[in-house]
Amino acid sequence: MSHIELGVDETLFPGISGPMLFRPQTAAPMSDLVEVLLRGENTLSRGERELIAAYVSSKNDCEFCTDSHSAFAAAQLDEGMPLVLRVRADPDEAPITPKLAALLRIAGAVAKSGREVTTELVGTARAQGATDEEIHDTVLIAAAFCMYNRYVDGLGTLPAGRAEDYQAAAEAVVANGYLPLAGRAPSALNVAAS
Amino acid sequence: MSHIELGVDETLFPGISGPMLFRPQTAAPMSDLVEVLLRGENTLSRGERELIAAYVSSKNDCEFCTDSHSAFAAAQLDEGMPLVLRVRADPDEAPITPKLAALLRIAGAVAKSGREVTTELVGTARAQGATDEEIHDTVLIAAAFCMYNRYVDGLGTLPAGRAEDYQAAAEAVVANGYLPLAGRAPSALNVAAS
Repeated sequence: MSHIELGVDETLFPGISGPMLFRPQTAAPMSDLVEVLLRGENTLSRGERELIAAYVSSKNDCEFCTDSHSAFAAAQLDEGMPLVLRVRADPDEAPITPKLAALLRIAGAVAKSGREVTTELVGTARAQGATDEEIHDTVLIAAAFCMYNRYVDGLGTLPAGRAEDYQAAAEAVVANGYLPLAGRAPSALNVAAS
Repeated sequence: MSHIELGVDETLFPGISGPMLFRPQTAAPMSDLVEVLLRGENTLSRGERELIAAYVSSKNDCEFCTDSHSAFAAAQLDEGMPLVLRVRADPDEAPITPKLAALLRIAGAVAKSGREVTTELVGTARAQGATDEEIHDTVLIAAAFCMYNRYVDGLGTLPAGRAEDYQAAAEAVVANGYLPLAGRAPSALNVAAS
């Protein structure tokens, strides 16, 4: 049971979905933001961006966001869930590019505080080939998940009941993106891609 | 100098304004979200909501957001900046309603982690008259400022150079809201209110 009366069956609408239905006025920009960050045009792949989201969510101990974005990352990475779990355990020991590892270190710093991002962390990412846009988006994905994680847990929502629920959600997000979460049609970019 | 090349004179575009101009695709939903949270129709006044934003920003040690939202709160509260400074120092010792003090305690918990929000904190707020909507919005304002604060500091942006810059920004926000930050026209609610 969440801290407030969301007006939905929380076993059917776990995690962020209950609060999004409770308050559509804020759900709209929240879903727009995650859609452009994780699925909009970008030199980082969708799988890489979901990996950043899953990693930050695990640092913030948000069970719902960690499990859902891990499933969304796994569904969009050739190496699947084994890679996601290795990145969550330690990006420096995972078989990923040095650039992605450097970006994940920036994301981990953001999870603690914006002030933890040092010129050294940014310099390392740039030396490994990260662009200003990629550094910007990494910081903002990490910062945004510090919001989504606190929203989900600060309202005391329930995680999904079964692992296969995240799998089903992954199929829906890969196919249609995040806008349907706020009760809206998939974005033009998904229609264009399908 | 921020960590990335924002393409603007950072003394003229301090804090969040540089990154918002750098990446308009993410600035749009970010400004939509803050507009509805801090200025949309609500049983919490605009001044009270800015106070929550300033309080969370101070907990996160974000100088730009603390100083700007303190100015925005002061401009919309009868008691002005002296009250804002007392709330930032200790909500329990400030001359505010028990309901607002209880909501600020929830916001302070969210700043640490969503998991810090307890049924006791929520129960106290409810006993002081807070509604489910007010508890929801307090959690989300606090969570959202955990994002904005990390965005501003994670990119290493500069605070404004002079205190009067925040005063000028307060006049602009009170008059026109947050959408012009993302290069857009003031929202219908401001046009309706003017």
